[in-house]
Amino acid sequence: MQTAAADTCFVWSVRVYYEDTDAGGVVYYANYLKFFERCRTEWLRALGLDQAELAERDGLLFVVAGLSVDYRRPARLDDRLAIEARVEQLARSYLVFAQRALRAGEVLATARVKVACVDARRRAPTRLPDAITSRIAVSATACPTAVS
Amino acid sequence: MQTAAADTCFVWSVRVYYEDTDAGGVVYYANYLKFFERCRTEWLRALGLDQAELAERDGLLFVVAGLSVDYRRPARLDDRLAIEARVEQLARSYLVFAQRALRAGEVLATARVKVACVDARRRAPTRLPDAITSRIAVSATACPTAVS
Amino acid sequence: MQTAAADTCFVWSVRVYYEDTDAGGVVYYANYLKFFERCRTEWLRALGLDQAELAERDGLLFVVAGLSVDYRRPARLDDRLAIEARVEQLARSYLVFAQRALRAGEVLATARVKVACVDARRRAPTRLPDAITSRIAVSATACPTAVS
Amino acid sequence: MQTAAADTCFVWSVRVYYEDTDAGGVVYYANYLKFFERCRTEWLRALGLDQAELAERDGLLFVVAGLSVDYRRPARLDDRLAIEARVEQLARSYLVFAQRALRAGEVLATARVKVACVDARRRAPTRLPDAITSRIAVSATACPTAVS
Repeated sequence: MQTAAADTCFVWSVRVYYEDTDAGGVVYYANYLKFFERCRTEWLRALGLDQAELAERDGLLFVVAGLSVDYRRPARLDDRLAIEARVEQLARSYLVFAQRALRAGEVLATARVKVACVDARRRAPTRLPDAITSRIAVSATACPTAVS
Repeated sequence: MQTAAADTCFVWSVRVYYEDTDAGGVVYYANYLKFFERCRTEWLRALGLDQAELAERDGLLFVVAGLSVDYRRPARLDDRLAIEARVEQLARSYLVFAQRALRAGEVLATARVKVACVDARRRAPTRLPDAITSRIAVSATACPTAVS
Repeated sequence: MQTAAADTCFVWSVRVYYEDTDAGGVVYYANYLKFFERCRTEWLRALGLDQAELAERDGLLFVVAGLSVDYRRPARLDDRLAIEARVEQLARSYLVFAQRALRAGEVLATARVKVACVDARRRAPTRLPDAITSRIAVSATACPTAVS
Repeated sequence: MQTAAADTCFVWSVRVYYEDTDAGGVVYYANYLKFFERCRTEWLRALGLDQAELAERDGLLFVVAGLSVDYRRPARLDDRLAIEARVEQLARSYLVFAQRALRAGEVLATARVKVACVDARRRAPTRLPDAITSRIAVSATACPTAVS
């Protein structure tokens, strides 16, 4: 599921079910955030990080601190979407992801998501795990647009 | 929000938003379970019980052990629904609720929900809090059908 | 994703994300209905049926008319679940599915779901598409329990 | 539910249930978008506009074109939140809302949401209904912070 430039762009495939849609006949606007998160979670897993384990063993949580979404075209029932995540910024205690949702190469939505690493008990910002910082080479390489 | 026969039938009003609907133009089938739970939660609150407090202070969780739902007619966007909960059975460590969703007196869905009281750490069945058992007089009194 | 006895038991793999869990630390009870539906949808797709297409071209909707769920053990964040669907009853205008959610061969939840085929405009019961009735050989064969 | 300066700030009360939370013990980040939308919907209703009716009678849909959210502190189970909506910009075919989620006067999250009015069939931008444009006096008046 990962593209050639493994660390710079990650793609995850998502199918649209009834649960994702609303009476407007399209994917409900909040549900893109679920798709974006599934992709970030699978990107973490590809790095060898399991969030349940991180929480239990290391007392670390990844928490969304802010985001922006630009909705361009609606996704519909039964669509197969490619969800992308690219690390745009890597700081001591947070990362910023640039994300996109595409259908057959067409961009449906783009997002920027700031994810902070926090201590699970105090919910205070803390250093990102080395497993992340050591493996990420932040680059300006764009995600490929054609994903089937 | 509570009817005259307070302990035997509880009614909670719910509004249908886009988040609750699907591309079929109606309320998504899983979301009735959210409505039914909101009603049970407010019934608990009316008895003076707050689930967050019960979990933190007493280590008690209410967990759904089983349920059945009969879907008769669909609810739609902007509908105002009356959600009912009536305690049908009261056992040592669980209760069974008879629930209904109505729109202007018309029954849209009915459910039977078995809720077990469990110890939060072990998730093992445990005695219901006295606040519940001492106040509930299980009765065959039906919920009133007309709620506006 | 389909087992050897293709028409009698279908298995779909599902991953648990934060979106599926609740503050009790486990999968929220209504969300099993989403998992069960994803499996039924993929079973339909494996039969060559696309629900969006069925709705648009044939004016057919599949609507859940009733269900029961038995919750045995909780699923948790990051779990990988095997969701099963087996057609237990095939009638003129509806089917009844026996479904299960398993983690590493352990049964977490079982369900029985009655799905009716309705005319999209009138929401009245109508005959199941031949693509379904002609291909389903209802059998008592149980779903295999071990799915990785 | 509406404050004195009715057209400039609208407040809607929301209760946090299990359905809104995740295994981190707090409200799931996508669910704030549901709360924000409930508030915008009730603001429309207070103006005499019903979205189901607008869609059916006038063929108009309100569609979120873009948004940004800043998450400051987590909301938790059983919290009672005040959700605010203030029209910050009023254009020919869209509005921009400034929104906030507060608990006992403390700001938990802020958002900016651009809502476009579209023709339901073509999903093309179209003029906002007069009922909206004629009644909204855009102002810089801030929402009151204390809501119980």
